[in-house]
Amino acid sequence: MTATTSDRLAAAREGVDAVLTALLDDAAKGVPDRLAAAMRYAALAGGKRLRPFFVLESAAMFDAPREGLARVAAAIECIHSYSLVHDDLPAMDDDDLRRGQPTVHRAFDEATAILAGDALLTLAFEVLADPATHPDAGVRVALVAGLARHAGAAGMVGGQELDLAAEREPPGAEGIGRLQRMKTGALFGFACEAGACHAGADDAGIAALAAFGVGYGAAFQMADDLIDATGDTASAGKRTGKDADRGKATFVALDGVDGARRRLEEAVDDAVRHLAPFGDRADILIAAARSLVA
Amino acid sequence: MTATTSDRLAAAREGVDAVLTALLDDAAKGVPDRLAAAMRYAALAGGKRLRPFFVLESAAMFDAPREGLARVAAAIECIHSYSLVHDDLPAMDDDDLRRGQPTVHRAFDEATAILAGDALLTLAFEVLADPATHPDAGVRVALVAGLARHAGAAGMVGGQELDLAAEREPPGAEGIGRLQRMKTGALFGFACEAGACHAGADDAGIAALAAFGVGYGAAFQMADDLIDATGDTASAGKRTGKDADRGKATFVALDGVDGARRRLEEAVDDAVRHLAPFGDRADILIAAARSLVA
Repeated sequence: MTATTSDRLAAAREGVDAVLTALLDDAAKGVPDRLAAAMRYAALAGGKRLRPFFVLESAAMFDAPREGLARVAAAIECIHSYSLVHDDLPAMDDDDLRRGQPTVHRAFDEATAILAGDALLTLAFEVLADPATHPDAGVRVALVAGLARHAGAAGMVGGQELDLAAEREPPGAEGIGRLQRMKTGALFGFACEAGACHAGADDAGIAALAAFGVGYGAAFQMADDLIDATGDTASAGKRTGKDADRGKATFVALDGVDGARRRLEEAVDDAVRHLAPFGDRADILIAAARSLVA
Repeated sequence: MTATTSDRLAAAREGVDAVLTALLDDAAKGVPDRLAAAMRYAALAGGKRLRPFFVLESAAMFDAPREGLARVAAAIECIHSYSLVHDDLPAMDDDDLRRGQPTVHRAFDEATAILAGDALLTLAFEVLADPATHPDAGVRVALVAGLARHAGAAGMVGGQELDLAAEREPPGAEGIGRLQRMKTGALFGFACEAGACHAGADDAGIAALAAFGVGYGAAFQMADDLIDATGDTASAGKRTGKDADRGKATFVALDGVDGARRRLEEAVDDAVRHLAPFGDRADILIAAARSLVA
C-alpha cells in the first residue's frame, strides 16, 4: 500500500469506528445486556475496515454530498462482522481466535454468538433504511436491495456454503473462483456499488464499481490465502497454516504458492479493467488493488 | 376459531404458499443446490401461516390495492422460518422435530442450517425492497425499517436471548411478559403494522395495529405454552411437555395451568382494546384473538 492509500484507510477506519460505536449504543436500547455486549464485541473488535474504505473511495469518485455515507460503511461492517461470528462457530470453521482475541462463541456462548450474528445482520438493514443514511427513499431502498442481493444466498452466504462443501469435495479452478467471488467478492462488490449508489452515479457507473468490487474481493481472498500459506500467526493476527490443515479449497492448494501468485496478479488486472472509464478519478481504488500484489 | 376466520386463514395460507414457492424458486438462481434445498425445506414445511393472515386482515381494514401484499406476508414467513431453524439448533433449543418432520440441521447439517437461516433472513429484506412489493419506495423502505426493528435485537432476536437466559435464571412475571412480547409478539406486531403500512394507513392506525399485533403475539405464546403443558405430541405436531422438562420460563410454570389461562384471557382483552377505534372493521382480527381462549 502507498502512503496515500494507507492514510485514507486509517481515516476510513476512524470514521466508521465512531459511527459504528454510536449506532451500537443506540441499537442497545431495550436489548438484553448480554446480546448487546456480544454485538459490540463482534463489531468493534478492531478490524482493518477495508470495506468502509471502498465505500468512501467509490463515492468520492462522484461529486455528491457525503452525509450519511459513513452509515452505509457501518452497515457493511455489521454484515462483515456477523459473517465472521457465524463462520467461526463450531459447526462451521470452529475457530477460537479472531484478530488475536477469543471468538464470540468462546467469549460468550454459542447461542449468544448465533443470535448476535442474526442481530447484526438485521441491524445493517435498519441502518440503511433510516432517513439519516440518505434523504431519498429511492436510494435507501436501492441500498437495501443491493445489500440483500450481495450478502444473501446468491452472494456471501452461498459462498460460505460452497466453502464448506469444498472441504468434502475439492473443486477445480472454476469452482474455487466461483466460491471466492461469492464468499468474499460479493460484499466488496456491494461496498463499491453502495458508494456509487449513495453518490447518485448512473446505472453504468454503479455496475462498473460493483464489478470492480467483486473482482477486488476475489483477489483479496487469494492474497489472504497466500498469507495463510506463507505468513505466521503473530503478524497475521490469526492462526495461519490452517487452510492446508483442513484441506480448504484455495488456489494455493491447487497451484502452489507461485501459481497462486500469478493468478492473483491476473485477478487484480481483471478487476482494475472495470475502472478504465473513470480515468484518474479511479487512481486510489487502482492503487489499493495493486497493493495486493506488492 | 369461527368458520369465517378459519376459511380466511386457509385462504391466506394458500396465497402465501404460492407466492413463497415462486419467490424461493426465483431466489435459487446462482445458489448452491444444498443451500437452496435447505431454504425451501425450512420455508415450505407447511406452517399454519398465521402471520400472513394478520398481514392480509390488517390491510383489509383499510381501502387500498392489495397488489404486492402477499409478498409482504411471504417476507414475514421467511423471517419466521429462519427463526425456527436457528432456534432448533443444538446450541439453542436442540430440537429434532418441527411440524412432525426432522429439523433442518437434522435433515441437512448444522452449518447448512445456520446458513439457510441467514439466507432466509436476508431474503426477507430483498423481497420487501423489490418494486413488486409496493410502487412507492417510501412504503417499501418503511416496511424494511419496521421489519428490522421488530425482528432484531430489540425484538424477536432479543426475545430469544432472554428465553435462553431464563433457563439459567428464572424470571418473574414481568420478565416472562417482556420475553414473550419480544420473542413472539414482535413479529406479529410487524405483521399487523405491515398490513396497515402497505395499505397506506396513517401513523396512528399503523401504531394501533402494531400494538394489537404485539399483544396478540404475546397471547399466542401463552396459548402455545398451555398446549405444551396440556396437549399431546401427535395433535400439536411437535414434541410437547418439553417446556417443563427444560425448565422453560412460562406463565404455566409460574402460575399453573389455571393461573396461566386467566393471564391469557387478560392478555387477549388488552390486545383487542387497541382495535376499539376501528369499530366493526376490526371484527375478523378480534375474532382471531378471542379464539385463543376458546
